[in-house]
Amino acid sequence: MEKISKNAACQVATLSERMRRGDLFAAKCPSREVLKHVTSRWGVLLLVALLGGTYRFSELRRKVGGVSEKMLAQTLQWLERDGFVRRLSYPVVPPHVEYSLTPLGIEIGRHVEVLADWIETNMHKISPLPGPQAGEEE
Amino acid sequence: MEKISKNAACQVATLSERMRRGDLFAAKCPSREVLKHVTSRWGVLLLVALLGGTYRFSELRRKVGGVSEKMLAQTLQWLERDGFVRRLSYPVVPPHVEYSLTPLGIEIGRHVEVLADWIETNMHKISPLPGPQAGEEE
Repeated sequence: MEKISKNAACQVATLSERMRRGDLFAAKCPSREVLKHVTSRWGVLLLVALLGGTYRFSELRRKVGGVSEKMLAQTLQWLERDGFVRRLSYPVVPPHVEYSLTPLGIEIGRHVEVLADWIETNMHKISPLPGPQAGEEE
Repeated sequence: MEKISKNAACQVATLSERMRRGDLFAAKCPSREVLKHVTSRWGVLLLVALLGGTYRFSELRRKVGGVSEKMLAQTLQWLERDGFVRRLSYPVVPPHVEYSLTPLGIEIGRHVEVLADWIETNMHKISPLPGPQAGEEE
């Protein structure tokens, strides 16, 4: 019941809600951590990429332009811990490791994809100007 | 036509698509920058908060638990530059500044809200374990 007791720290309306819901506006709610993982730059791109199927580490690295080996490994680890990514390691030489989405990962991946698609299709209306950069993750 | 020429740098299927769409998988596509702004920790929370109406700086700071004055100002500036947030400054003493979403901001805010809601309502299924933290923004 560890998860429930952690969620109870979030401020929400009712007791039953408190047992089930997170509260992103509360600084200490663990939902903040999940939000950070799935909306991190590489988190978004990995979730969308993995909606396409099962991939090996090197395939994901090629697919997601600009990601370093370190950030790819770290982001996959976060998503695996949150229960969104399944890591399958085959006991062969050389090592063969495959990554895919769990059912929960597919659900959140679809929401992230809608957001990503919206940004891509609306880029012509948006004007990201050069200026102060958002905090870099690597 | 500055925006279109920037988008043309992204790798997409056809010329017409290249003129209109971004490509998040391309490292140099400006859509990456927009994604970074709207999915930054405070970006998500501000967009969701501002779906509720027009707020002053101090109101937003109270609403979004844990945000520093510096990060709030910076994130509002990004969102304003991208065309998602409208900043209205009244020439009075003391200064009175109000923030609200533009029509484009409302559109993207709704997508971000769906994602945030999903995370909050599914927190009981997710297991964010303590461990290496995602890159802090402040």
